[in-house]
Amino acid sequence: MSTPHFSLAIGVGSKNRNGQWLEVFYPRPILNPAPALLDGIARLVDYQGGNECIELDSKTLHALEDMFIDMKQDELADVASILEESDRPRVITILATDEAPTSTPEAYLKLHLLSHRLVKPHGTNLAGIFSLLPNVAWTSEGAIDPEELPERQLLARALGRILSVHSVDKFPKMTDYVVPGGVRIADTARVRLGAYVGEGTTVMHEGFINFNAGTEGTSMIEGRVSAGVMVGEGSDLGGGCSTMGTLSGGNSVVIGVGDNCLIGANAGLGIPLGDRCIIEAGLYLTAGSKVQVLDDQRKVIDVVKAGELSGKSDLLFRRNSLTGTLECLTNKSAIELNNELHAHN
Amino acid sequence: MSTPHFSLAIGVGSKNRNGQWLEVFYPRPILNPAPALLDGIARLVDYQGGNECIELDSKTLHALEDMFIDMKQDELADVASILEESDRPRVITILATDEAPTSTPEAYLKLHLLSHRLVKPHGTNLAGIFSLLPNVAWTSEGAIDPEELPERQLLARALGRILSVHSVDKFPKMTDYVVPGGVRIADTARVRLGAYVGEGTTVMHEGFINFNAGTEGTSMIEGRVSAGVMVGEGSDLGGGCSTMGTLSGGNSVVIGVGDNCLIGANAGLGIPLGDRCIIEAGLYLTAGSKVQVLDDQRKVIDVVKAGELSGKSDLLFRRNSLTGTLECLTNKSAIELNNELHAHN
Amino acid sequence: MSTPHFSLAIGVGSKNRNGQWLEVFYPRPILNPAPALLDGIARLVDYQGGNECIELDSKTLHALEDMFIDMKQDELADVASILEESDRPRVITILATDEAPTSTPEAYLKLHLLSHRLVKPHGTNLAGIFSLLPNVAWTSEGAIDPEELPERQLLARALGRILSVHSVDKFPKMTDYVVPGGVRIADTARVRLGAYVGEGTTVMHEGFINFNAGTEGTSMIEGRVSAGVMVGEGSDLGGGCSTMGTLSGGNSVVIGVGDNCLIGANAGLGIPLGDRCIIEAGLYLTAGSKVQVLDDQRKVIDVVKAGELSGKSDLLFRRNSLTGTLECLTNKSAIELNNELHAHN
Repeated sequence: MSTPHFSLAIGVGSKNRNGQWLEVFYPRPILNPAPALLDGIARLVDYQGGNECIELDSKTLHALEDMFIDMKQDELADVASILEESDRPRVITILATDEAPTSTPEAYLKLHLLSHRLVKPHGTNLAGIFSLLPNVAWTSEGAIDPEELPERQLLARALGRILSVHSVDKFPKMTDYVVPGGVRIADTARVRLGAYVGEGTTVMHEGFINFNAGTEGTSMIEGRVSAGVMVGEGSDLGGGCSTMGTLSGGNSVVIGVGDNCLIGANAGLGIPLGDRCIIEAGLYLTAGSKVQVLDDQRKVIDVVKAGELSGKSDLLFRRNSLTGTLECLTNKSAIELNNELHAHN
Repeated sequence: MSTPHFSLAIGVGSKNRNGQWLEVFYPRPILNPAPALLDGIARLVDYQGGNECIELDSKTLHALEDMFIDMKQDELADVASILEESDRPRVITILATDEAPTSTPEAYLKLHLLSHRLVKPHGTNLAGIFSLLPNVAWTSEGAIDPEELPERQLLARALGRILSVHSVDKFPKMTDYVVPGGVRIADTARVRLGAYVGEGTTVMHEGFINFNAGTEGTSMIEGRVSAGVMVGEGSDLGGGCSTMGTLSGGNSVVIGVGDNCLIGANAGLGIPLGDRCIIEAGLYLTAGSKVQVLDDQRKVIDVVKAGELSGKSDLLFRRNSLTGTLECLTNKSAIELNNELHAHN
Repeated sequence: MSTPHFSLAIGVGSKNRNGQWLEVFYPRPILNPAPALLDGIARLVDYQGGNECIELDSKTLHALEDMFIDMKQDELADVASILEESDRPRVITILATDEAPTSTPEAYLKLHLLSHRLVKPHGTNLAGIFSLLPNVAWTSEGAIDPEELPERQLLARALGRILSVHSVDKFPKMTDYVVPGGVRIADTARVRLGAYVGEGTTVMHEGFINFNAGTEGTSMIEGRVSAGVMVGEGSDLGGGCSTMGTLSGGNSVVIGVGDNCLIGANAGLGIPLGDRCIIEAGLYLTAGSKVQVLDDQRKVIDVVKAGELSGKSDLLFRRNSLTGTLECLTNKSAIELNNELHAHN
């Protein structure tokens, strides 16, 4: 058993009346567990190797607690101690390798690894995750199978309570699972579990971060970070701005934002940006848009499709308000940029 | 009594301290009830005809339950059975005809019919509905009259609870009343009761659907479906896009979207679209905008106001990024379109 | 003690485990308290003058209740009566002057004064308020220090409850503290405590109002009112529109909107507007944008930066959909406007 393993975590979750998992909450997921820890756990839960999720009873959790105390793993001992008293379904998920997930508990563990900042977006294999995540009614009384909802809502009403449904989705909101350190998220309904929210990031009310997407570090996010998009250190997304995702519409290029960029309010981004780029408020830059490239004298040096400027740094995109022309200014490197553009033509 | 009736439903709701209805929840509304069912109910609740809402006590609900069991109406029997134990205000609303509603319970029934997909947007008479819907504080403890809220909030606080107010509005969120089958709604605060959400629709976090509006079938809704707007089968609304409503601003034309359309992120729509139309991301198309119509050789064949293109199919709208001109391309039928435009001039 | 005082309020709040204030709820804040009331309170709570917050025990609250009854201050007597039974931290905050706040209870009082419409945006000194507002997890079980959240969430889960985190922010949502009269707020997560929401205002689902910002009176707010921005009587903000704030990006000019303006859906505003101005849907007007000014014959009379049109009335901004030129039309006063523009050049 002493081969390196990808991850493990103890969790507690919800099932529907048919005994199918709806979701799992892992308070302390572990990346690359130490071999001694893994071996100790394997013995107690009868883990046979591979990627597996094993349901836990109170007795096993108590044995785990004792072992964690011996190993001076205080946080894990706390988790085991609290969960051994619970009557909810409890599980340990052990991933030998970072293969595509094959069960709901595995899928939830991978989403936790992202939101706990243990792996970065695109840093774990999420292939096929949609089909492993059941659609769930996320309610004031926890996760409920939509099939079971009507009866629950009527019963609650008859008793004078409201069973409020906050979301009906395959992904829960991140903050009901983890609030990573050093962040503010004004409206948590808009950040999915599986988002990677860098320390120092503020997500304002209009901000949004999908799963497998996020921010490297300090950022002010008032726009939408689509699935797969990573925003570099120090970059800000203005109110209501859009980053084109790869899930629906758009193109197949993964959009990203470099460091210290500024995307204006109500603007949009259809190409990956380098560092220190600016997109003017209200301007939607799609890959196919033709752009006049200006030098530092504001002289036109080229006309290219925006997609050809992908990943380049120090660019400012704006629409000339008198001619309607989409312009790209560059303060630092107009001549190099021009050479570079034509070099790969 | 054996004339055809429009609708009936048994519900449970909330009143303020003055005994005025705040809202009604109807778990199983019925469109065009069978005459035998209606007659049986009429006898038990002393219904005299017309559009009426009649409060129910536990004894009457018990009698209704027995009758529903005899009629093998299991779902209705369940509703009656659960509500006969309740101490909340219970009501049966019977609509002989689809006239304009005249009470809060009638108004709520019509909103339910829409969200249960029993009638389509514009398919039931909602005239005057705003004045029948009281403004309500929708809270973690249910519907509260805003006048009664300050005392309730202070009392909750003194007891160490938080009485959280999720919305102050005439319309509640749909999902606290019904979650129709086959949908995902990432942030339910953004879909009002009275929305018609077609099976297969996903409403993402930035999506919004007003009452008397919705989607025919499979759609990805990441933009705003204003009151009165219907989105056809297979059409997608990109993140943050806008459809102009008729309630405030805009024009009096009802906006709609045909089948298999794509409205880009942060775009906007001020005219009704036919099928297979595309609006480029970031482009707001108002009815009064002048548009260059291009043929499949990209030659300008006409300049018209966008409103003249209302309802036509196979159009692509974009802003030329070098000239700033709003262009309409059409792959299939440029010549026919041109003829058609000038035919009605 | 009989000098005029700025404000006082009795509140109840939350502290973290270290005894630090997280937030304070003041049900009935008072601006410019009557000297007799202030003097009576000062004696009972041992107030020595200046800006101070003094914790209250049940005995003192009972004495305050008796005094309020004697003074026929029924609302204050109710507050004291309810809070004397509470085991939560209670406080009276007295502000002799409107200086910059120096504690969390003082900061919260100032935010309450705004949302109770006792002072207008920019009408109270908020200097340094960010550092006085701790970052709080706003949950279904009240305000929680983010440090204490993981354990609370795990315990709740083990017991089969969900401890849902609605927001992680320095500012709470306004409606958990006060719902001012005559407003609708469809999604309360989008209006911060410290917003000033004028009577007759509807904030739709896409609307947003930051602290120290708001509406004078009747308005339909479907866009974003940034910190510091005030919207005049009768002005509407279309869906998804943006008003440039002064906190991040943008310029240092405080943006405001005059009376009876209309900002179109997905539009944006980077200059202060006078009265009766219109910005076309989808148009982002930044201060640096060059604008063609047209007279009532649609003849170009000038080209200026939009910033030079700051605060002027009766302007309509649009982008010419054939030329891409940003145009400013004025129905009433083209000649006067022209003279005025050149007078200050």
